Amino acid sequence: MSRSGFAAVDVIAAKRDRQVLSDAEIDWAVAAYTRGEFADEQMSALLMAILLNGMSPGETARWTAAMIESGIRLDLSQVGRPTVDKHSTGGVGDKMSLPLAPLVAACGAAVPQLSGRGLGHTGGTLDKMESIPGWTAVLSPAAMIRQLSDVGAVICAASEDLAPADRKLYALRDVTATVESIPMIAASIMSKKIAEGTDALVLDVKVGSGAFMKSVERAAELAEAMVDLGWAHGVRVSALLTDMSVPLGVAVGNAMEVAEAVDVLAGGGPADVVALTLALAAEMVSLAGLDVDPEEVLASGAAMDTWRSMVAAQGGEPDFVLPTPRERHIVVADSAGVVSRLDALKVGVASWRLGAGRARKEDRVQAAAGILCLAKPGDTVSAGTPLFELHTDTPERLPEALADLADAIEISAGTDAAGTDAVTVPDLIIDVLRR
Amino acid sequence: MSRSGFAAVDVIAAKRDRQVLSDAEIDWAVAAYTRGEFADEQMSALLMAILLNGMSPGETARWTAAMIESGIRLDLSQVGRPTVDKHSTGGVGDKMSLPLAPLVAACGAAVPQLSGRGLGHTGGTLDKMESIPGWTAVLSPAAMIRQLSDVGAVICAASEDLAPADRKLYALRDVTATVESIPMIAASIMSKKIAEGTDALVLDVKVGSGAFMKSVERAAELAEAMVDLGWAHGVRVSALLTDMSVPLGVAVGNAMEVAEAVDVLAGGGPADVVALTLALAAEMVSLAGLDVDPEEVLASGAAMDTWRSMVAAQGGEPDFVLPTPRERHIVVADSAGVVSRLDALKVGVASWRLGAGRARKEDRVQAAAGILCLAKPGDTVSAGTPLFELHTDTPERLPEALADLADAIEISAGTDAAGTDAVTVPDLIIDVLRR
Repeated sequence: MSRSGFAAVDVIAAKRDRQVLSDAEIDWAVAAYTRGEFADEQMSALLMAILLNGMSPGETARWTAAMIESGIRLDLSQVGRPTVDKHSTGGVGDKMSLPLAPLVAACGAAVPQLSGRGLGHTGGTLDKMESIPGWTAVLSPAAMIRQLSDVGAVICAASEDLAPADRKLYALRDVTATVESIPMIAASIMSKKIAEGTDALVLDVKVGSGAFMKSVERAAELAEAMVDLGWAHGVRVSALLTDMSVPLGVAVGNAMEVAEAVDVLAGGGPADVVALTLALAAEMVSLAGLDVDPEEVLASGAAMDTWRSMVAAQGGEPDFVLPTPRERHIVVADSAGVVSRLDALKVGVASWRLGAGRARKEDRVQAAAGILCLAKPGDTVSAGTPLFELHTDTPERLPEALADLADAIEISAGTDAAGTDAVTVPDLIIDVLRR
Repeated sequence: MSRSGFAAVDVIAAKRDRQVLSDAEIDWAVAAYTRGEFADEQMSALLMAILLNGMSPGETARWTAAMIESGIRLDLSQVGRPTVDKHSTGGVGDKMSLPLAPLVAACGAAVPQLSGRGLGHTGGTLDKMESIPGWTAVLSPAAMIRQLSDVGAVICAASEDLAPADRKLYALRDVTATVESIPMIAASIMSKKIAEGTDALVLDVKVGSGAFMKSVERAAELAEAMVDLGWAHGVRVSALLTDMSVPLGVAVGNAMEVAEAVDVLAGGGPADVVALTLALAAEMVSLAGLDVDPEEVLASGAAMDTWRSMVAAQGGEPDFVLPTPRERHIVVADSAGVVSRLDALKVGVASWRLGAGRARKEDRVQAAAGILCLAKPGDTVSAGTPLFELHTDTPERLPEALADLADAIEISAGTDAAGTDAVTVPDLIIDVLRR
């Protein structure tokens, strides 16, 4: 038993027996774990009990507060603009932060986009930005605040001082099969975003094969928990539930996603990426209390100007040349028909195999590796139409990636009315949750 | 991932998701944990998932087998008599091993009673025997087998080489609130007893306030699981479910329980201790395939002769003098009536406070400390009738023990028919499970 009067074994037993943990128990458990007084083997037992027996909204809120308390909370009041951020639960081809941050900044808000690196089949925003020669992800809090005032947008690595309890807990959850607890996922995401100091936040909760949440029900449950946590801490939060059964846009990889983001800022880009950029931007601008139309701002070229300033402020050359791969390989359709399915998870895994992602935290990613998805569900193809373009610096990995892709796409025979009807293109935006 | 192809996180996730673990997964998990390759924080998450999601009889059997495999299994075939042991799940005043081992040996069997020390409010058999001056609990396997052949009974410490996986797992379960899993309790007890090499085993599963199992349902579930495990490993096992809402016998403590056991061997002793000794002995003798009546053997004095040989073989003086306490204190009834309740748990805790038990493994116990329960449920008392006699070497602990005892006993007013009817003395033997 600790001097506080709590014993780890009693807190674990309470949750094991489906009791609601008290505020004092939660505060103590999170703080003692961060200090190393609540042992790893005890915390993992508690995490498994939480995963299987759940936490009430009140317990989740207190757990989140305790994780915020474990570190610093940034004060962005000096920025001089309303602050609004976006968080995505992660998907394949999800480069949304890149066009969004400068667009919303050009609308008059400040976007403090503190990001992470990718692990597994979904890419990380920092990995993508690091394809830009000279660009650095590491900024001091003071430099970050200065850039938010001057440019209006920053994409950078989160400080180690933000919610350190979450960093330690996440590493433990990862090796103990306790990641997939909705209260814990919500507390993890929201503790970092609340500590970051943003006034408002739009959540992009992905649903489908390529996302962490496979069902709309689980995604909605997570979105609701996170929206509640934000408002409870004075952060205005909305959530969009968006499809991740199909990769977003054409490009899946690091440098190639940067190129696609620049296309969007230049007024082009794939229709789905443009549509989601505008939907998320409209939600962010509205939560920031601004009366501006992002579509007009995008068309004006102001977002591209902000993007160039943003890149330059972090050491990048605005007219950067992106790295190119050592090898390219094109996969073509062997029969005519309509693309009826394109599986986000399989494309993500194939891209990861080509070198775009990492298996372990310490691995390096290949900037030029990835996949262009040249045909999407609903597209009509002939025999010989290119379906995928694979990029890699390690061509020995091509056979494995090609095997994944063979399973990733389905072409329904014939272009007759019956065949075309059978192809359902999923809606990009499934639902919106607002307070 | 290990070279075996298994990863701890996948085994944990399988049990988290209510899957049945394969034999290969269980074998690997237990062996890898014993070797230190399956980390403590991963095993505790798995244990919590097992506690909350359960294990099938097949999984429990395999887990038990894997724990036996982690160490040596004794071969008692050279003993030259049928071997039969008894295991109790632990109770207050439970000195049954002391009269039983020599009695069953005197009936013609060999009793390899490998025992432990007590932790918490229930005493350990070795702690009791160590009240006897000169007696040693530590025997080599060879010396143990020799004594089993020569004397027919041995009470000694279990070798560290028997089920070492269980020792490591028990220490982890203790600090992670994962002790109370029926499959794990069954596997823990049975892995040690099967590794000990006995042909047959009688389980005394205690039920009630002073026992680990508070309800008959849980006790029956545990008993059934253990009986099945034994037979699956070729050990003939029966189980008695016996009451532990009231302390067993009069004496609760180390030396005073030895004295009470000697009384039983001499033909006296409290009725409940005699009855349970004979019931357990009859079951053991029957499982050993012997056609002898333990009651006649006890009356003949042969059990006392075996007891004296047993004590002498391990360095004790057969005519030993037990240690006496520095202080005695008597609690008397303050009104007349019938004892309607005597709570085993509270008496156990009071005895522990007086020095009979230990709070931590490294603590020493006082041989002379303990409590005589001078009035039991159903007994009629007058004002001034002695209820308890407390013995201790540390009289400063008396006030706490007296406070526990004040709550431990209830005397229903009056000795009229209505009052007496209201007193229900629980049956000592609740049920018997046989294959």
